[in-house]
Amino acid sequence: MNENKQRAIFYHAGCPVCVSAEQSLVGALDRGRYAVEVVHLGNDKARVAEARAAGVQSVPALVLGGQTLHVNFGAALSDLG
Amino acid sequence: MNENKQRAIFYHAGCPVCVSAEQSLVGALDRGRYAVEVVHLGNDKARVAEARAAGVQSVPALVLGGQTLHVNFGAALSDLG
Repeated sequence: MNENKQRAIFYHAGCPVCVSAEQSLVGALDRGRYAVEVVHLGNDKARVAEARAAGVQSVPALVLGGQTLHVNFGAALSDLG
Repeated sequence: MNENKQRAIFYHAGCPVCVSAEQSLVGALDRGRYAVEVVHLGNDKARVAEARAAGVQSVPALVLGGQTLHVNFGAALSDLG
């Protein structure tokens, strides 16, 4: 990872709302300035705690430079484990 | 406006949640590919109807290439006129 880039983590759970948001929003981020990671919490339950610690309450959500943005509503984090 | 760019319109109402989302999310968009416009619906009520037509139900919201993304929750569009 380029150390000069800020981190952007998109958490989702594979739901239609998530996929739709991912395709538009994640695709619009400036990859020159952001190191973008997409995490499927349904498949990678070990990272649910990390998402919760970042303030994620529902998915899809984008954690961008330390700020948590909930984008539309697909599923509650509490339903994912 | 560069005709090759997609449009990205960020609707907000000056609320703290809106300003916070604007600073992080709007700042992260790829300006090389998106023509970004920020609309303050509290000051520009004439555009509330346009936002509603785009499917905006609350602010802040980002309309990106025709898709409407509600980001966190600041205020309901119905409270803005």
